[in-house]
Amino acid sequence: MFPQPAGVEWREPYDSAMKQPSSPVSPSGLWLYGIHPLRAALANPRRNVHRAILTPQAADAIGRPLLAQVRHEIGTAEQVARSVPPGAVHQGAALLCDPLSQRDLGDVLEGESAERRVVLVLDQITDPHNVGAILRSAAAFGAAAVLVQDRHAPPESGVLAKAASGALDRIPYIQVVNVARAVEWLGKQGFWRVALTSDGTQSVREALPRGDVAVVLGSEGSGIRRLVKERCDATAFISIEPGLDSLNVSNAAAIALYELRQGHRR
Amino acid sequence: MFPQPAGVEWREPYDSAMKQPSSPVSPSGLWLYGIHPLRAALANPRRNVHRAILTPQAADAIGRPLLAQVRHEIGTAEQVARSVPPGAVHQGAALLCDPLSQRDLGDVLEGESAERRVVLVLDQITDPHNVGAILRSAAAFGAAAVLVQDRHAPPESGVLAKAASGALDRIPYIQVVNVARAVEWLGKQGFWRVALTSDGTQSVREALPRGDVAVVLGSEGSGIRRLVKERCDATAFISIEPGLDSLNVSNAAAIALYELRQGHRR
Repeated sequence: MFPQPAGVEWREPYDSAMKQPSSPVSPSGLWLYGIHPLRAALANPRRNVHRAILTPQAADAIGRPLLAQVRHEIGTAEQVARSVPPGAVHQGAALLCDPLSQRDLGDVLEGESAERRVVLVLDQITDPHNVGAILRSAAAFGAAAVLVQDRHAPPESGVLAKAASGALDRIPYIQVVNVARAVEWLGKQGFWRVALTSDGTQSVREALPRGDVAVVLGSEGSGIRRLVKERCDATAFISIEPGLDSLNVSNAAAIALYELRQGHRR
Repeated sequence: MFPQPAGVEWREPYDSAMKQPSSPVSPSGLWLYGIHPLRAALANPRRNVHRAILTPQAADAIGRPLLAQVRHEIGTAEQVARSVPPGAVHQGAALLCDPLSQRDLGDVLEGESAERRVVLVLDQITDPHNVGAILRSAAAFGAAAVLVQDRHAPPESGVLAKAASGALDRIPYIQVVNVARAVEWLGKQGFWRVALTSDGTQSVREALPRGDVAVVLGSEGSGIRRLVKERCDATAFISIEPGLDSLNVSNAAAIALYELRQGHRR
């Protein structure tokens, strides 16, 4: 099925000059791995895919209709492992594909039919595990998009896609140059902008009215930057035990998304 | 300060026969790392500590009163790195200590003064990152204990402690032989036992009454085992978009804990 022998030509080198250290990138794309990420990538019409290598068990789990979307080869777990970073939980499945093309927030929001549009804004959250987990919750709770700053956010990678468990191909992951300006713009579009911080003035339940909402989250270390926070309409906290550190940021995001969905049903 | 030269005697070997592959274990204990885990371990009267190695910056961050609890040496980041697994985010701080001694659930619950006692029961959740994140949320939301099955749960390790961000030393992590029996016992103590599953019959908000509650969570792959689920009083779901997979288990736990705390204030 392939012109080159598997396991030789496919072994993409790690290039420290590339910006995705956790995911080997070849000139022709990046490797995703894991059953959920592959299923979602193959089902995503916006995802340009090149080739896949799978164990028989993984091929069964993904299924024929989706695998018909890509040229693929059945191999051993060891062959799959050669295409992904050491230690990656690949579940016997790896896919070489292009990164998704960037989307415009205005276009995405126009196309969103939900009664209440929810956008998550991540201010300099760089850990791909956290951002991936946030993408997963955002998709699960029906958010319209996740917005990040292009220079201070994890790039599309195998690690990010695995942590997102398929959500990277289900929810727009929008990289902007200036988060503060994007938050300002969201306000002009009628979004109520809530900054989630431990010193917020309202509980997260009180701070989330009906209508379109943007929830802004900062990194666990440095929080939301002043210029971004100043552009928010309200600050909200999640009540925890006194004297303890903040919640994990993906858990805080999940709680805010959960409350938004509950509010929708109130 | 030490009889042996630093960086030689301290380099503990990886022993694949030991049961904690992600944390090097010496006959005399295990290595914790990271600022929050070290602060919490040094502040925990139940934690028996041996020695620490820190960069000057990490020593400043932890502070003199806590460091007075342990013999310690100031070194370089490279020296700290030798005591922890490759790639571990040690933040310039590593501590050799004993695992915590096991505690009895009955004793823990008797000592718990909260108006509503909350216990999380994890049925065969093995990923230390997920269990660590759950410990962190459990501590943040004031739960009384996290209960796991000893043979199908991550052992105490540096990875678990780092993901818990100090919570491993703040909330009892109780390993039992038989989870189903522990759930039965909790019922006899008056706990309302709620199994969190995607096919639950009530929303998580409806399923959590006042009074003592045990929330049971299963692994993302196989869910809660039948024998455990049968012993619960109710099953609860978190409403997400149709057709999507479940939430990450630590996010689901955080939402349940958040709801319990909200309910407490209603």
